[in-house]
Amino acid sequence: MKILILNGPNLNRLGKREPDIYGSATMEECLATLRTDFPNVELEYAQSNHEGELIDIMQQASDGDMAGIVLNAGAYTHTSVALLDCIRSLSIPVVEVHLSNVHAREDFRHKSLISSACKGIVAGFGMNSYRLAVEALVRLAAAK
Amino acid sequence: MKILILNGPNLNRLGKREPDIYGSATMEECLATLRTDFPNVELEYAQSNHEGELIDIMQQASDGDMAGIVLNAGAYTHTSVALLDCIRSLSIPVVEVHLSNVHAREDFRHKSLISSACKGIVAGFGMNSYRLAVEALVRLAAAK
Amino acid sequence: MKILILNGPNLNRLGKREPDIYGSATMEECLATLRTDFPNVELEYAQSNHEGELIDIMQQASDGDMAGIVLNAGAYTHTSVALLDCIRSLSIPVVEVHLSNVHAREDFRHKSLISSACKGIVAGFGMNSYRLAVEALVRLAAAK
Amino acid sequence: MKILILNGPNLNRLGKREPDIYGSATMEECLATLRTDFPNVELEYAQSNHEGELIDIMQQASDGDMAGIVLNAGAYTHTSVALLDCIRSLSIPVVEVHLSNVHAREDFRHKSLISSACKGIVAGFGMNSYRLAVEALVRLAAAK
Amino acid sequence: MKILILNGPNLNRLGKREPDIYGSATMEECLATLRTDFPNVELEYAQSNHEGELIDIMQQASDGDMAGIVLNAGAYTHTSVALLDCIRSLSIPVVEVHLSNVHAREDFRHKSLISSACKGIVAGFGMNSYRLAVEALVRLAAAK
Amino acid sequence: MKILILNGPNLNRLGKREPDIYGSATMEECLATLRTDFPNVELEYAQSNHEGELIDIMQQASDGDMAGIVLNAGAYTHTSVALLDCIRSLSIPVVEVHLSNVHAREDFRHKSLISSACKGIVAGFGMNSYRLAVEALVRLAAAK
Amino acid sequence: MKILILNGPNLNRLGKREPDIYGSATMEECLATLRTDFPNVELEYAQSNHEGELIDIMQQASDGDMAGIVLNAGAYTHTSVALLDCIRSLSIPVVEVHLSNVHAREDFRHKSLISSACKGIVAGFGMNSYRLAVEALVRLAAAK
Amino acid sequence: MKILILNGPNLNRLGKREPDIYGSATMEECLATLRTDFPNVELEYAQSNHEGELIDIMQQASDGDMAGIVLNAGAYTHTSVALLDCIRSLSIPVVEVHLSNVHAREDFRHKSLISSACKGIVAGFGMNSYRLAVEALVRLAAAK
Amino acid sequence: MKILILNGPNLNRLGKREPDIYGSATMEECLATLRTDFPNVELEYAQSNHEGELIDIMQQASDGDMAGIVLNAGAYTHTSVALLDCIRSLSIPVVEVHLSNVHAREDFRHKSLISSACKGIVAGFGMNSYRLAVEALVRLAAAK
Amino acid sequence: MKILILNGPNLNRLGKREPDIYGSATMEECLATLRTDFPNVELEYAQSNHEGELIDIMQQASDGDMAGIVLNAGAYTHTSVALLDCIRSLSIPVVEVHLSNVHAREDFRHKSLISSACKGIVAGFGMNSYRLAVEALVRLAAAK
Amino acid sequence: MKILILNGPNLNRLGKREPDIYGSATMEECLATLRTDFPNVELEYAQSNHEGELIDIMQQASDGDMAGIVLNAGAYTHTSVALLDCIRSLSIPVVEVHLSNVHAREDFRHKSLISSACKGIVAGFGMNSYRLAVEALVRLAAAK
Amino acid sequence: MKILILNGPNLNRLGKREPDIYGSATMEECLATLRTDFPNVELEYAQSNHEGELIDIMQQASDGDMAGIVLNAGAYTHTSVALLDCIRSLSIPVVEVHLSNVHAREDFRHKSLISSACKGIVAGFGMNSYRLAVEALVRLAAAK
Repeated sequence: MKILILNGPNLNRLGKREPDIYGSATMEECLATLRTDFPNVELEYAQSNHEGELIDIMQQASDGDMAGIVLNAGAYTHTSVALLDCIRSLSIPVVEVHLSNVHAREDFRHKSLISSACKGIVAGFGMNSYRLAVEALVRLAAAK
Repeated sequence: MKILILNGPNLNRLGKREPDIYGSATMEECLATLRTDFPNVELEYAQSNHEGELIDIMQQASDGDMAGIVLNAGAYTHTSVALLDCIRSLSIPVVEVHLSNVHAREDFRHKSLISSACKGIVAGFGMNSYRLAVEALVRLAAAK
Repeated sequence: MKILILNGPNLNRLGKREPDIYGSATMEECLATLRTDFPNVELEYAQSNHEGELIDIMQQASDGDMAGIVLNAGAYTHTSVALLDCIRSLSIPVVEVHLSNVHAREDFRHKSLISSACKGIVAGFGMNSYRLAVEALVRLAAAK
Repeated sequence: MKILILNGPNLNRLGKREPDIYGSATMEECLATLRTDFPNVELEYAQSNHEGELIDIMQQASDGDMAGIVLNAGAYTHTSVALLDCIRSLSIPVVEVHLSNVHAREDFRHKSLISSACKGIVAGFGMNSYRLAVEALVRLAAAK
Repeated sequence: MKILILNGPNLNRLGKREPDIYGSATMEECLATLRTDFPNVELEYAQSNHEGELIDIMQQASDGDMAGIVLNAGAYTHTSVALLDCIRSLSIPVVEVHLSNVHAREDFRHKSLISSACKGIVAGFGMNSYRLAVEALVRLAAAK
Repeated sequence: MKILILNGPNLNRLGKREPDIYGSATMEECLATLRTDFPNVELEYAQSNHEGELIDIMQQASDGDMAGIVLNAGAYTHTSVALLDCIRSLSIPVVEVHLSNVHAREDFRHKSLISSACKGIVAGFGMNSYRLAVEALVRLAAAK
Repeated sequence: MKILILNGPNLNRLGKREPDIYGSATMEECLATLRTDFPNVELEYAQSNHEGELIDIMQQASDGDMAGIVLNAGAYTHTSVALLDCIRSLSIPVVEVHLSNVHAREDFRHKSLISSACKGIVAGFGMNSYRLAVEALVRLAAAK
Repeated sequence: MKILILNGPNLNRLGKREPDIYGSATMEECLATLRTDFPNVELEYAQSNHEGELIDIMQQASDGDMAGIVLNAGAYTHTSVALLDCIRSLSIPVVEVHLSNVHAREDFRHKSLISSACKGIVAGFGMNSYRLAVEALVRLAAAK
Repeated sequence: MKILILNGPNLNRLGKREPDIYGSATMEECLATLRTDFPNVELEYAQSNHEGELIDIMQQASDGDMAGIVLNAGAYTHTSVALLDCIRSLSIPVVEVHLSNVHAREDFRHKSLISSACKGIVAGFGMNSYRLAVEALVRLAAAK
Repeated sequence: MKILILNGPNLNRLGKREPDIYGSATMEECLATLRTDFPNVELEYAQSNHEGELIDIMQQASDGDMAGIVLNAGAYTHTSVALLDCIRSLSIPVVEVHLSNVHAREDFRHKSLISSACKGIVAGFGMNSYRLAVEALVRLAAAK
Repeated sequence: MKILILNGPNLNRLGKREPDIYGSATMEECLATLRTDFPNVELEYAQSNHEGELIDIMQQASDGDMAGIVLNAGAYTHTSVALLDCIRSLSIPVVEVHLSNVHAREDFRHKSLISSACKGIVAGFGMNSYRLAVEALVRLAAAK
Repeated sequence: MKILILNGPNLNRLGKREPDIYGSATMEECLATLRTDFPNVELEYAQSNHEGELIDIMQQASDGDMAGIVLNAGAYTHTSVALLDCIRSLSIPVVEVHLSNVHAREDFRHKSLISSACKGIVAGFGMNSYRLAVEALVRLAAAK
């Protein structure tokens, strides 16, 4: 079973940027832990600052053999109708994750344009948000 | 370790009410599974249709020996500033859960008044939302 | 055939409170007239100032042998998503009534949160609003 | 006693148009039933797709010997300040009716511009809405 | 002369909860001081987390021999039309109080639904807000 | 010199309808006074409850030999983009008049859709509003 | 094959009115060209400044043997729920056309109330908008 | 009979400033014409760029022997609640005037805060607006 | 101990203006009573219709030996960011007072721009509002 | 004569994605038909999921020898000010097309940010929308 | 060459007031530095807390021999249409400056009413904002 | 000392595009002048139409040895939360510049999403805006 973990803009700087909001762990450390925790899942990882590239990657993942996508779309969460349309057109489930509790931050972060097309949402648990999202996808696959 | 699972208005009818939105499993079945999955956690359960009673229960849980609360506030999620104030005043973490993806439903369900006071949010995975929330609280406690 | 007439907050003071808006008849007088007018209908009556209690009562009515509910939710009409969810989950029809013409009063009374889940609406006819609502439920049952 | 039943735009096509919303009964059938049910009331009927004509008709009804008007203003309910002004200037009561539960339809149908000038509102009971409105007017006259 | 001091949701935890906003004095200490300062006034005290119970209590106070109510409705200040309707229906004056300056807090606390039905408002002086409100009621009674 | 005085919906009932808002003088009396006051102006008068007819009449007036139009569009002032487009397409000036001070009435009467296309506005002086508007048109013609 | 071209308010003055927005060609010239370009289509033409008359005409067209309607509703595009309801109730397709690019004009022209009920929209090509709309209806018929 | 003509901010530069909007006549020329046209009215004139001074002047005018005020409040029309309160507190009528048609200018000029307290409004006729306003006040006095 | 009582626009006419809203007592009577009630406090009084002068006065009060300011900013309460900035920059506390219950009046009076910078608010008690505000400042000073 | 057909995000999946909204024809089939229908027009085609790349392509098209662009900007229609600025800066006309009737879909699709800069709009005719748009550009070129 | 530096309300307290927002330098120090940096420019300085006085001063500056104005309108930036009208009527350029980055402060400071009439804007550089603004005016003059 | 000048979408066409808004100078000419004016500053230049690429470039600039960034984000100024997040995460200051006075243009250009994260703003001075921004960064560095 393969799952894609996909990060959006500025999330290549996790661990370096605003640690009071995003924590000080890097994405590499997070992926290592996840691979240990889910030995039976093949976890691929990608990141891009480009809205269009995130769409390209998700289209390819859906056409390939991925079982689902864990998507932290970062700032595009709040501005991208194109990501919404993309997620709707995929044949695999997408789980929306956020490191921080977006509802405790600025008003414009309370509105997600992509949530309605996602299977579910996990937010506010730092790097554990990814863990819970992967588990959700694994259980989703098991339930079929 | 003790965790309270607290359900708000109309959630006493899970499994009977609108199964296309909420699924056909009952809360009893869900609790049984959770207790199997988390043998080391003492899971208490309460439900009330009364906003004030939900506040009473959460205050008592925080003053007692609970380690955290998994809260599905149902409709009060969208209308209750009193629950928000209550959660802020507690000394234990609260995780907000929803069975359905609230963002794929009516507009007034996109706005949660209580999110900003909660530790994190899990939504859209049906009964699995409770499971992921319990796990989040367990890991939170472990991280301390 | 049994029908529940259910009044919300402050409606226990009908006949005493603001007679220029609500009239000077009491609910007891209204019920007496209704029972005379509908000799074949068993009319039950309940009132509560508690949002949660209104939900409790409607759930029990629906699980029992009531044929329908005439609901004057008072102020909760304009603020309660929980009542909306409750009405949606019932298996019996609910008719929304108001004594006064709510649209001729303050702006916040023009918006009803519960209307979309009710079978129909009767407003503005004073105590006669209840009479018309009972008749509507009787005809609804006859039409089945 | 004479009562005018007045239908607004597109309601000349009742029974033919969108039966899932408006039912399959025609207005002629409805009037026949009403005349049977209210043998002592002279029921006149008029329909127009023209906002100005609805005003002309209501002014004449008020200047004549009508005791009241049952008005289904259709789409003009939501856009016509001119109907509002007209109803306010009449010396006889007007009851607003709708076949469907307008609050369960599009957002722009939730706002009625004319409600504040009407005596009361009956909505959501199909052709029975007219029946209840006539009864309301009869009782209103009896109460004087 | 009797005055009721009535506290709404979460105010049973004054002195324990968020002392930077609400101060560290408890309600018991506040009441003791008030009773010393107003030896000729019989001060009753009640608190509830339940919106409906606050209505029950105020209705009873008004039907009894209370001369007025000092109401800190807490979070219900901003969400409860039912409290507004209740206050309007009472035959005794109600003074709205807040410990903190609600206008210096979140936007949703700037809007009070109940102010328009209250005699007056006192906010921002901590426990002294209650003192000033009692004095206002005493002077109001004296002025009659 | 010819000027058209054109009244919109419900203004055929001036003097009969809501005298506290519109005064008790009839339009006939107003016209008689105006013809005395402006002996050198040929004053034509028309009224319609129909939005489309008001457009027909104004188009004909502009194509004929009218020097200007005094328009009291009544309720259509606040809802008709079609009147706006019509006035813009005319080759003669239109002066908007209102009997009452529309800004001291309901909110929806504060917004005029047609003002931007009119030469000027006179409001609040009862029947004198027409007089001032005719004088404005006369002076406008003199200034050319 | 018969198609109705229907123009709304003020469009009887095309070629005379505001040529910088609407061009200087008259509707007669446009119809002549269309009849040459579509020799196999019987093109009928109607225009009215009356909202109600536009509804009357469309109802008759749908009940007759028209294959579709090309509708330039002019200003009613932005204000008429009645036209929306009418189009929805027809059994033939309606194409919405505009001469000008309405989105490059005033804000209130950006919102069309009737678009959601129309088959499609053509705007901004001057008299060519009618041509493209007729072609769209011809192809729509051919596709069946 | 004495009437005060009062101009607000920047209107001391009439005739010099933006002549395409305000015309090229100066206020001095306007006053000379008015004094010729109304030989029986004593016309006083004042101007200030200060909101507070406009209030001072109007209070003194009302306490003195002025019969009314013609007020062009300029930009304060759209921002000053203080002028509104002042006009309400006066015992003499105030007529609001504008040189330009404010509704054909920027959106923020469509809203007048002071209109509801004024007797009436005259706008869009350039310097003639003052003339019509004086005439309105003269007729108002005559009508008493 | 010195306290400044500062009144804003139109409050120089208290007792003369709209007594149904503001009462019939004059400010002089109010000050006389206050000086009797607070013999140990030196009460200075100032009033201005000028926004800028209110700022000048408050800056001087803060730089002098005043212990606090009781401010009734009248209409500027709802429009002045400059007063807000001024109050924030002072080194002495300001208490906002209103004679009437501003929340029971027009909508635009529900929003205070200055509240967030004030220590507290007292509204609705007529001249007693000043008394309660002075007492609040005295107790504030005592608490230091 | 050369025309560019340019598709935005997710439109590379036409024919595969949500066929109930977008139809089951692929873009390749559409292009083949268009090339047959317009033998004298050289039709180029490009697609990108990247907002920036769409700008790059349109700038090159305008600097090259293209006569016009048929643009289906997909989701960027509703979010991209950058595309708006780009279209405004081009020296060749752009026609906006949509396969579906965007006004019959979600609210956020009713607003196009780019329409005001486009020559015209064609929407709702499926693949025929492209055909009508090409024809519009051909006629536009012929008209010069 | 003469340039006026004009400061609005509360800016007479720079260096004393809220140094975390505005810095600790006084305006006198700033002016001394500017006069050193621009030896060929005659820099005049004025400050007022009065909106009307700021207008008076700018009108005189424009009528005199000033080459431009550097305006820090303080709080009036966000509320004064009168300043906007004044700047528009001047014959010399005005540059808007702010010490702080107003967009990083409260929402109501994000909207400037005067920007549209100013030549340009410099904000966020503390006292250096004035320096950059003077330089901009010098270069503007040089470019003529 | 190195400074990056970074231009966003469509700004590669400066000097060619809409010269009435943006002037006729090219960016190359602007850079040449800047390098002459600031001989001690190494000025790098980049431009991209891609939102993601602008983020890539700014991240690299911050990780490299740049002392600051002069950013003209063009249309992304008004739509990109991703740029906002990027600027917040950088360790070097960013100055926002605009050639035109964005507040004198369309409403949607009045709102900048990125301003709150920038050090300061310079707008409206054409190519001089870049010069002033570089000077601001130089002085900022000198002040450390």
